[in-house]
Amino acid sequence: MAGGRSIRKRGRRDVPIALLSDFGYQDHYAGVLRGVIALIAPGAKVIDVTHGIAPQNVAAGALALRESWRFFPSATIFLAVVDPGVGTLRRAIAVETDSGARLVGPDNGVLWMAVEQAGFKRAVELRSSRYFLPDQGSTFHGRDVFAPAAAHLWNGVALSRMGPPTRDMERLLPPEPVDHDDELRGVVIYVDGYGNLVSNLPRSRVDALQTRFPTRTLLVRISGSIPIVISRTYGDVPKGAPLALFGSFEMLEIAVREGNAAETLAAGPGTEIRVRAEP
Amino acid sequence: MAGGRSIRKRGRRDVPIALLSDFGYQDHYAGVLRGVIALIAPGAKVIDVTHGIAPQNVAAGALALRESWRFFPSATIFLAVVDPGVGTLRRAIAVETDSGARLVGPDNGVLWMAVEQAGFKRAVELRSSRYFLPDQGSTFHGRDVFAPAAAHLWNGVALSRMGPPTRDMERLLPPEPVDHDDELRGVVIYVDGYGNLVSNLPRSRVDALQTRFPTRTLLVRISGSIPIVISRTYGDVPKGAPLALFGSFEMLEIAVREGNAAETLAAGPGTEIRVRAEP
Amino acid sequence: MAGGRSIRKRGRRDVPIALLSDFGYQDHYAGVLRGVIALIAPGAKVIDVTHGIAPQNVAAGALALRESWRFFPSATIFLAVVDPGVGTLRRAIAVETDSGARLVGPDNGVLWMAVEQAGFKRAVELRSSRYFLPDQGSTFHGRDVFAPAAAHLWNGVALSRMGPPTRDMERLLPPEPVDHDDELRGVVIYVDGYGNLVSNLPRSRVDALQTRFPTRTLLVRISGSIPIVISRTYGDVPKGAPLALFGSFEMLEIAVREGNAAETLAAGPGTEIRVRAEP
Repeated sequence: MAGGRSIRKRGRRDVPIALLSDFGYQDHYAGVLRGVIALIAPGAKVIDVTHGIAPQNVAAGALALRESWRFFPSATIFLAVVDPGVGTLRRAIAVETDSGARLVGPDNGVLWMAVEQAGFKRAVELRSSRYFLPDQGSTFHGRDVFAPAAAHLWNGVALSRMGPPTRDMERLLPPEPVDHDDELRGVVIYVDGYGNLVSNLPRSRVDALQTRFPTRTLLVRISGSIPIVISRTYGDVPKGAPLALFGSFEMLEIAVREGNAAETLAAGPGTEIRVRAEP
Repeated sequence: MAGGRSIRKRGRRDVPIALLSDFGYQDHYAGVLRGVIALIAPGAKVIDVTHGIAPQNVAAGALALRESWRFFPSATIFLAVVDPGVGTLRRAIAVETDSGARLVGPDNGVLWMAVEQAGFKRAVELRSSRYFLPDQGSTFHGRDVFAPAAAHLWNGVALSRMGPPTRDMERLLPPEPVDHDDELRGVVIYVDGYGNLVSNLPRSRVDALQTRFPTRTLLVRISGSIPIVISRTYGDVPKGAPLALFGSFEMLEIAVREGNAAETLAAGPGTEIRVRAEP
Repeated sequence: MAGGRSIRKRGRRDVPIALLSDFGYQDHYAGVLRGVIALIAPGAKVIDVTHGIAPQNVAAGALALRESWRFFPSATIFLAVVDPGVGTLRRAIAVETDSGARLVGPDNGVLWMAVEQAGFKRAVELRSSRYFLPDQGSTFHGRDVFAPAAAHLWNGVALSRMGPPTRDMERLLPPEPVDHDDELRGVVIYVDGYGNLVSNLPRSRVDALQTRFPTRTLLVRISGSIPIVISRTYGDVPKGAPLALFGSFEMLEIAVREGNAAETLAAGPGTEIRVRAEP
């Protein structure tokens, strides 16, 4: 018995709580999340995904979470706080996925892209104030609602005890690319810290265009640039040259080898990207 | 005996050492703090409050520490290094509070706002060089003096062994707000990463103004703005509108819903804020 | 037996994996490194050195690693990813040092300055794909190759199982200072977050100049500044004044007391620094 408990406890110690937010690195806000978790779940292992999501950019947070969750242990508890609607009627939720993860955050779409990939299993609306910090304010639900919920989940509190079940959650997806005959049109949806321009064009859609025009060459145009061929890797072009490739997001990405594509091409979120099968 | 020791050690493992500094995120300096702690106290759990305090801004560090300490486990050891006077005669101290926390840092006021809230119990001047790194230089006391002190405290070294006791410590408080008849005047003391303008006006002083003029409405003016009513939450105003509310600091804060108040209002540290009871 | 294993496991838990990269703090990339390590080596203790190395600046990464390694436990596994050549023919390596550390990263020089100090013992080229993530792409070897390698090393996989041994590795050192009669000439090789200008002038070379001209005074000139004397500590000059001193790198550094030398002196990487023995 004691042995079994000991093993379970040791096992739990290695279940991470992974944090993602737009709190930034200037203030103490992310630190306070970590403190609250240490207060409620002293043995929890806390891992930062990032706190550098652009302020109040829910879509960027959702994308970062989608690109991260599958590289964490399956039982990870994700705490995602990008919450421009704090203090409005938006709900606070906790979701369990088919993959075994749990995600906690505002119901504004920030959780959706990851949940869609990981498989929605069940969700609750966080309403049981016994799992909140006492006297919580109305502007810092990360501290007062979400971090306590994640910590109590880590401690073994059942999802169902935290509030009423809910079947629906706010959905948020990148804009769909559009086919125009021999051209696939998309937009930049994310610019990373290196200046790489991540588009909404998944590999499958680009491959489908090639399949429809098997003898043609696909060329990428962005922001008035010269046509760019699709490379397999950075090594395919000389330093300073632009290239298009499928990066870690598995979406078409425009980069400049050892450079900054966003600066070089004067492009950013919303910039149009066209892939054309050239005769 | 063995069992008792094992329990004590496991208990200690969950006592965090919490780090706050102005070392920023570009350099290896904060990493070296973490390394030194791992070297001296291999089992210690280290939590970053933040390393993003504006360079050499002791007041900002003191405020961040004040707003953080009570959300950490009571026995937390705080290491706060914002130290423009490194290499001068300023003292290095370690303080124990009535709340059970210990705080280590330069005696320049950075610890004071937290100590005042948590209750001063005892302090020592860090002088015992056996608890410093050997051959410490004169420019990086975070690495050579403060991190070792925090790690040795975590290891169980008594505060009293680290140097002579001291009763006084450098005090630093935000400027006091001033009452002018039906008006309360303060200043912006902190701008957070969202651009929210945090003032030196605590809820108690604003409530007192309302109590003196119970039939009037309190309106806030800052930086030539239109008068702003005091809201309970962000949801009280439309997107893009300025609002005044008591945020997580429990001080009056000026924000713009889903926007950046510092940019919108061209305001920053030192900008005057006036709350007037309007007839 | 069981006790021995338990002690070894506990011991291993306190061996850190220390991360250094140019991934920055905006994106999820550093978070994904941490996730992959938690996935493969759930008990590993992960410490960030920094992820703020300037994008693709291998020399800055090498310098930060050199200034950090000796402040970590001797058995630390360092994972250093500044990798502008990802997707080219540059090799991936793991190195063991005489000091007992292991370092994993691209073979582009980023590991060299630390390895030179710690003592090269043996190295392998990371080629065994069984220790990579499956289906790794060609743009994010931090996630797909290096983090898995570090985690498997932590788990006890022998270096020799990860690929063929190699004796050579890419070397990268700061430019050598040059002596011109009574003058020692160097350059700024790093600007830290405070604006301090770190040169390539080690204390030994400056001391040698003094020894050659024992009756003269050494004066430092940079960027058309007035001559600066070499101080022992910040306290030696008034606030706002420039000073030259041996900082935490043990190289001559130009700083401005409670100010930013890079801004004040309009200097940066590559700016010439001259130390002259004045008659």
